[in-house]
Amino acid sequence: MSNVFENSLKLHEKYRGKIEVISKVKVTNKDDLALAYSPGVAQPCVEIKNNPENIYKYTSKGNMVAVVSDGSAVLGLGNIGAKAALPVMEGKAILFKQFGGVDAFPICLDTQDTEEIIKTVKLLAPSFGGINLEDISAPRCIEIEERLKKELDIPVFHDDQHGTAIVVVAALINSFKIVKKSFETAKFVICGAGAAGSSIAKLLIKMGAKDIVINDIDGIINRDDIHKYDFLKAELAELTNPENIKGGLSEAIKGRDVFIGVSAPKIVNKEMIRSMNRDAIVFAMANPTPEIMPEEAIDGGAKIVGTGRSDYPNQVNNVLAFPGIFKGALRAGAKKITDEMKIAAAFGIAKLVSDDELNPEYVIPAVFNPKVADVVADEVERIAIEKKITREQSV
Amino acid sequence: MSNVFENSLKLHEKYRGKIEVISKVKVTNKDDLALAYSPGVAQPCVEIKNNPENIYKYTSKGNMVAVVSDGSAVLGLGNIGAKAALPVMEGKAILFKQFGGVDAFPICLDTQDTEEIIKTVKLLAPSFGGINLEDISAPRCIEIEERLKKELDIPVFHDDQHGTAIVVVAALINSFKIVKKSFETAKFVICGAGAAGSSIAKLLIKMGAKDIVINDIDGIINRDDIHKYDFLKAELAELTNPENIKGGLSEAIKGRDVFIGVSAPKIVNKEMIRSMNRDAIVFAMANPTPEIMPEEAIDGGAKIVGTGRSDYPNQVNNVLAFPGIFKGALRAGAKKITDEMKIAAAFGIAKLVSDDELNPEYVIPAVFNPKVADVVADEVERIAIEKKITREQSV
Repeated sequence: MSNVFENSLKLHEKYRGKIEVISKVKVTNKDDLALAYSPGVAQPCVEIKNNPENIYKYTSKGNMVAVVSDGSAVLGLGNIGAKAALPVMEGKAILFKQFGGVDAFPICLDTQDTEEIIKTVKLLAPSFGGINLEDISAPRCIEIEERLKKELDIPVFHDDQHGTAIVVVAALINSFKIVKKSFETAKFVICGAGAAGSSIAKLLIKMGAKDIVINDIDGIINRDDIHKYDFLKAELAELTNPENIKGGLSEAIKGRDVFIGVSAPKIVNKEMIRSMNRDAIVFAMANPTPEIMPEEAIDGGAKIVGTGRSDYPNQVNNVLAFPGIFKGALRAGAKKITDEMKIAAAFGIAKLVSDDELNPEYVIPAVFNPKVADVVADEVERIAIEKKITREQSV
Repeated sequence: MSNVFENSLKLHEKYRGKIEVISKVKVTNKDDLALAYSPGVAQPCVEIKNNPENIYKYTSKGNMVAVVSDGSAVLGLGNIGAKAALPVMEGKAILFKQFGGVDAFPICLDTQDTEEIIKTVKLLAPSFGGINLEDISAPRCIEIEERLKKELDIPVFHDDQHGTAIVVVAALINSFKIVKKSFETAKFVICGAGAAGSSIAKLLIKMGAKDIVINDIDGIINRDDIHKYDFLKAELAELTNPENIKGGLSEAIKGRDVFIGVSAPKIVNKEMIRSMNRDAIVFAMANPTPEIMPEEAIDGGAKIVGTGRSDYPNQVNNVLAFPGIFKGALRAGAKKITDEMKIAAAFGIAKLVSDDELNPEYVIPAVFNPKVADVVADEVERIAIEKKITREQSV
């Protein structure tokens, strides 16, 4: 076992998990108790009964996010189930607090049935101001998110889909300044058609992208094979691949300006990078081992390289996005998180790298840059209010 | 609005609710992040996948209780629904932490369907080490608790039923020392056949009580009316009222040694108390206004009087029970909370009033007595281990 795994195990054992639920108010004598609990607490209850919107005024709901998983697609570990997913969801919860000041609680569901998950999250919703779906396998994650967005009046966000997409778009906004290309004219290849890959494709299209090819385990997604696909891949086949090209990874990468990998370790080689257009941008985000190691990608002629790792430049990490997104959405009283809010978040992240600082090894701010969450939150809040997707707030 | 209600509202608005979820580990740099989250967190996940019991070693589950309500029977407010119940559940959560050092999280469910509640709690269970059911109306609360106890392997405890029962038994253990009576020989009347009343009756029987009469809104529960009753009252009709007496409150109280009220304000008068046996014990626990005010009960000849209020002697408050009960049960790795554990808890609470201190105005320790939760936890843990109702623990 390498050091980081061994030390992580020790850390988790020492503290017996990572989260704690504490009181914001003191309860040290009879008077405190009478206000925080019986009989005084009856009053906020009555106010909420009279006007449900008051729940945001008198409870923790407005700053509380459920981190919900069924354990079906956890990190690189796959379908490990609800219990084994709990350390990751606790980790996510503490990142919400650390980076965004948002309270979050891990909910690991003992079912992988789509309808049961939807139903359960809906029944839980009174306690929460937002739902962060996490590590739910594709394509179920798409349906679960879509349904919950429709059926709930609080923000629902599947981070594996949109978090990565937002940070990739942020990184591309800055990268295109260096290589003088644009979303409209660049040719993209996305490797991986799961939660992240499909959301990246859709957000690129919102940004103006015209030519995206998606490659996954069965080759390039194309319209002739549509009858073989699940609903998600069928949708992607309609949205991408304008020339309807076919083949595998080599064919998919050739002549492209941007490679976006959300797939598997070491499946791309130097020659493939060499077949890309000049000043290629390579975001190889398979974790912990990227699709191609940065040194090799550079060697193959890539101009800008990013990974999911903290030990290389340009770490594409969704912790840059989700804490600020929820912070802004909750503060605004947003009823959902829209594409416009996601794009605003991406621009917010991008602008934290000033034109003076911008260089091929610094297209995206560092994870611990203390300004990120607030800048993202401000952008998201602004759009939510501008576009009037907020609740009628009495408070 | 009286002062306590007004101030409670201000307090809730100031802090926007009462709970906060914080991290037990620091995450201030890349190395911290690698241990608390990706990639290190994969290791505790794998250990739990290989042995589910490890969830207690590497996550917060083992000290985390869900405070679950459907908002159907909240305080004295009745069926106010899930949202309006949240301030109470947050309050309960902070009492768990304050008094027992147990983390607790409020889950307000947007359903009052028995099967949906059971199903949802089961699906949530991976994140929690115990389930505290709260403010769910009778008789559904009985079925929900029974089913969950059977179908889950973590402690499930409906506090409105058992919390009050345990504290009443504790108070009686000490009261009987003063009046020289016993559970076996005393005649009891319980006013109120809901969650608390039914559980008190059952626990008194476990303590040896032979003659209990229960009066509720339709009069004395008796075997001739059994065809009119729901399953809970029918069960109580079988268990109580050995002489099968009939009538109303006056008939129920006459000639009794102990009055236990968990019903409605001011329904008992001085004359009724006068009709009880000598050295009557009166626990009038309707909240906030008791069945009879203490002064009046004393005037009517009662020897020992308790209420649910903090401004009179002998406050019967379930905060004396639930924090220590869960603390002990979780520490022991108990799979359930049994009658023996409840009785041990009652003796634990009772023994905190020493024989020297014991007097009619002090039969039960004060709510803020700092020893209570630990003494209760020790008793509960001891019994859980003795009776082998604990998980096979690898840790």
